[in-house]
Amino acid sequence: MPLAKDLESYFAANQNRARDELFDLLRIPSVSARSEHNADTARAADWVANSMRAIGLTATIHPTKGHPIVVGEWRQAKPGAQTVLIYGHYDVQPAEPLELWDSPPFEPTIRDGKIFARGSVDDKGQLYLHIKALEAHLATRGTLPMNVIVLAEGEEEVGSENLEQFIASHEDLLTCDSVVISDSAMFAPGLPSILSSLRGLAYFEINVQGPAGDLHSGSYGGAVMNPAMALARILATMHDADGHIAIPGFYDKVRDWGAKARDEIRALPFDDEHFREETGSPSLFGEKGYSTLERVWMRPTCEVNGLLSGYTGEGAKTVLPAKAMAKVSCRLVPDQTPDEIEKLMRAHVASVSPPGVQVTVTQLHGGRPWRADLDGPLFDAARRALRAAFDKEPVVTGEGGSIPVVGDFQRILGTPVLLVGFGLPGENAHAPNEWMSVENYEKGMRAMAGLWEELGRA
Amino acid sequence: MPLAKDLESYFAANQNRARDELFDLLRIPSVSARSEHNADTARAADWVANSMRAIGLTATIHPTKGHPIVVGEWRQAKPGAQTVLIYGHYDVQPAEPLELWDSPPFEPTIRDGKIFARGSVDDKGQLYLHIKALEAHLATRGTLPMNVIVLAEGEEEVGSENLEQFIASHEDLLTCDSVVISDSAMFAPGLPSILSSLRGLAYFEINVQGPAGDLHSGSYGGAVMNPAMALARILATMHDADGHIAIPGFYDKVRDWGAKARDEIRALPFDDEHFREETGSPSLFGEKGYSTLERVWMRPTCEVNGLLSGYTGEGAKTVLPAKAMAKVSCRLVPDQTPDEIEKLMRAHVASVSPPGVQVTVTQLHGGRPWRADLDGPLFDAARRALRAAFDKEPVVTGEGGSIPVVGDFQRILGTPVLLVGFGLPGENAHAPNEWMSVENYEKGMRAMAGLWEELGRA
Repeated sequence: MPLAKDLESYFAANQNRARDELFDLLRIPSVSARSEHNADTARAADWVANSMRAIGLTATIHPTKGHPIVVGEWRQAKPGAQTVLIYGHYDVQPAEPLELWDSPPFEPTIRDGKIFARGSVDDKGQLYLHIKALEAHLATRGTLPMNVIVLAEGEEEVGSENLEQFIASHEDLLTCDSVVISDSAMFAPGLPSILSSLRGLAYFEINVQGPAGDLHSGSYGGAVMNPAMALARILATMHDADGHIAIPGFYDKVRDWGAKARDEIRALPFDDEHFREETGSPSLFGEKGYSTLERVWMRPTCEVNGLLSGYTGEGAKTVLPAKAMAKVSCRLVPDQTPDEIEKLMRAHVASVSPPGVQVTVTQLHGGRPWRADLDGPLFDAARRALRAAFDKEPVVTGEGGSIPVVGDFQRILGTPVLLVGFGLPGENAHAPNEWMSVENYEKGMRAMAGLWEELGRA
Repeated sequence: MPLAKDLESYFAANQNRARDELFDLLRIPSVSARSEHNADTARAADWVANSMRAIGLTATIHPTKGHPIVVGEWRQAKPGAQTVLIYGHYDVQPAEPLELWDSPPFEPTIRDGKIFARGSVDDKGQLYLHIKALEAHLATRGTLPMNVIVLAEGEEEVGSENLEQFIASHEDLLTCDSVVISDSAMFAPGLPSILSSLRGLAYFEINVQGPAGDLHSGSYGGAVMNPAMALARILATMHDADGHIAIPGFYDKVRDWGAKARDEIRALPFDDEHFREETGSPSLFGEKGYSTLERVWMRPTCEVNGLLSGYTGEGAKTVLPAKAMAKVSCRLVPDQTPDEIEKLMRAHVASVSPPGVQVTVTQLHGGRPWRADLDGPLFDAARRALRAAFDKEPVVTGEGGSIPVVGDFQRILGTPVLLVGFGLPGENAHAPNEWMSVENYEKGMRAMAGLWEELGRA
């Protein structure tokens, strides 16, 4: 169903203002990683709070140990209405290297239908289109079909270190029926996308200790186990030749994605050769029986992230190293957990460790995988709203990486999370010349206004 | 047969002088690695040349691009006599760290029957006992049973960089029937030893290139080959579980040591647990079917000397590395050659390299293995002379490392090389508190005087 005429008229009439306001926000260099920008980051928080107040929300700036969290609220929906929490972030990545920008990073500029500015797509543009969508409802109708909480944090680019604690200690404030996040990209231009899955992470360090100190490889070589060779032998047992992970029990908890989801992935316009070019690898390689997108989105991995042993400088040094180290991490999929994978990893490494060395496994970092249950009124409403705004059936996508806050929301608040993003491939989110498509900024606010109308109707 | 009485009497009468003269040489800090000691090194060369002249040799100091080579000669033996080349070096290792020396490194001091000084055993004491052995013959009898060339170089501790070239360009000067070198240790106190083998070396760098640059392990992990994992898989194919090297053809050229040599090795007083403690390894490990000494002396190896890939700092970084590097070296035994092993290594790595990466193998360094043919008049004479001097049957030992000059002599001059050393285990050759046993200094010169007498008789 197309967007209601009053909302559409409002968006059309206020198009320039919505863009100008976003430009004001983009001009604030709220770089959370740089303490010299602390005042800018605080200014951005104020700006966002004021923009919420301007459309009729109450807004509170909550200090944290780091940058503040802004929470806007509107709770005047009719009894029985749902409560939706919209999450976004007002901080941005550093802009360096500045010389690679074609226009100044904090002076938004439109070229070729793209708004170039640091933070345009990540995430100021995507946060502000939500505020503009709420404004359209409140300005034209004086009300919203649901209660709404808008949470804008200022530390997403530095690990959201204070967010989990904030959510856990403000459950009453944040209680809701669903969470909506726009901080991702559409699969392709013109193709509205719902992000349905994120992989988790179990990150280990494996240390192999052989001799007490480095030995001369001539005087001792052949009589003691070489710890670097031992490490290589351990790592080599982690996959079979078909790219399956050979750690016993590793796949036991992997939930079947289902034929429908796999069909949807295979129907996406995706070109292996283009992807290969992007990586620069001589050829693609992955688990037998799965396509590239399936390998990245729905299958777990076991990767070496780092190796170090012995002499690594120029030329030849005949050292028999005392020790060897590998950083090894597994990307996880539902229902794997970092703790279970740690147990399996430990047991496997112990079972394949050769004699003559001592091997330790330490878990450095862990995060749970996430997958949306795409059935339910929120997702149905989102599909309809996206279809209406983009005139195209939305696709369901996955993401091989992690967005830890998604798991935090789902776990602490116990609500479904809808990830609907309006970025685009090549948007340079953490690179020079970051941009957001003007069209997606406009259509994104219409899609979200439509979502709330659809949700109110459901 | 015991040493002739005239020689024995001469040694007894001149014992203190032989020691005092050595102390003079030890007081010269001829550290070849330190340019601030260049004058000292030149002074040591002069001192050695003069000590040759003092006993009746002619001596020439040959300049090189580095430190000079001293060549002493005595060619007045009766017609048909053999010509022997004695090799040693007058340069020493740096003495640092000085604070760990119990007496000053360049002020020789006797404690517990040991001469403590930098260079005492490596190699000034072992070089000078040869000069004293020649002196005993010349002083008591006015002649020697053979022609003799004494070559003393000043760059042994910095890689003998100019020696091979000097030998090759002075073949006429250096032509001889045998080479004798005393720059090694006896297997145990009181146990005279002939060093019969040295391992060679083929040193490689293996580079694995995957993606063009480091990738995010979330966004790409699972879809491209991980170069560090690929490297581990390659390295893991190099041995089987029994410690045999699994590179096809690797052992094809390995000469059978023979039952007698193995029996001799097994008869040596050797304690695995003591050796293990020395390494600090949790347990010993090596090729099945061979003892520790056999593994180090007579079997080739394949070792990882270094590993480097991706992120190796503290904590977790989810990088999928673009590349991975291993330094891999093989200790070789006769009749393996570095060039053949390079071919086998290349072919093997190519055959086991997984898809999705490019793998290159570069040889960085190579050296041939060496094994003495222990039959022949020189070795028989050495056995008899050692037995007489130490009142004990000499043992035949091996060495897992390399002494490149041995191969150079044998190859360029085409002569057998006798390695007969008078150091001892624990002598701290390259460490603080280097020492040489007073007893071995005395018995060494008697053994060498006896050797020349035996050789003249043969």
